[in-house]
Amino acid sequence: MPVPKVGQYAERSMMITPDHLEAFARLSGDRNPAHFDDSFARGIGFDGRIAHGAVTASLLSAVLGMDLPGPGSIFLEQRIRFTKPVYPGDRITARLAVAKVREDKPIVTLSAVVTKADGTRVAEGELVVLVREPATA
Amino acid sequence: MPVPKVGQYAERSMMITPDHLEAFARLSGDRNPAHFDDSFARGIGFDGRIAHGAVTASLLSAVLGMDLPGPGSIFLEQRIRFTKPVYPGDRITARLAVAKVREDKPIVTLSAVVTKADGTRVAEGELVVLVREPATA
Repeated sequence: MPVPKVGQYAERSMMITPDHLEAFARLSGDRNPAHFDDSFARGIGFDGRIAHGAVTASLLSAVLGMDLPGPGSIFLEQRIRFTKPVYPGDRITARLAVAKVREDKPIVTLSAVVTKADGTRVAEGELVVLVREPATA
Repeated sequence: MPVPKVGQYAERSMMITPDHLEAFARLSGDRNPAHFDDSFARGIGFDGRIAHGAVTASLLSAVLGMDLPGPGSIFLEQRIRFTKPVYPGDRITARLAVAKVREDKPIVTLSAVVTKADGTRVAEGELVVLVREPATA
């Protein structure tokens, strides 16, 4: 996998469903009622239960590992701000763009934006990855 | 849920298994072979397939949503550096400690450290959360 160039980008979309929230809770143990109890979530100011921020961020991991830079990308750092709630039923799109490539090492900084179908930005930030090419025989 | 005080801390541990990696891949779509193919992972310098960084970070989400600050915590920001690989079979512990509480708003900054059983630090960073108390009738 070649090291990507500044300006390259890739994106993926997915519909967030209650199944995603349940799968993340089983994986992590995070059963915060903000994500599972509509009336609790309304009591703290939302329109109903919201997705875990980590579920939203998971789509960034998929773009990174599958598309850009792709297989062999190793996460070094993530800085993500969650700017608006994501509700089950929302379709989100995660977009990564290459912002910087180090000259001395295959370390790439990507800008990350996650939006809803209506254009609302729900998360944004930066990811730093190491791009390793498989050794050849 | 009261706003926590500087110095409070909480931690959770879990054994990372191939099931966690598969569950995260199903959830996110991230099937980077670094996480599923031992020989690919060895080809890029690891001892075998490694956990997604997001799987390691998921345990921080659980401490946050369940323990400290606990239910009602809403993720505003995460800054995490992944410092060493985590392999299936590793037991990891995620520890959060309250580093700062804003005076004007219930916004809390927590320092985050994830270690393996042998003490190796595999991730570290900071989380910023909003602490909302349920409205009472």
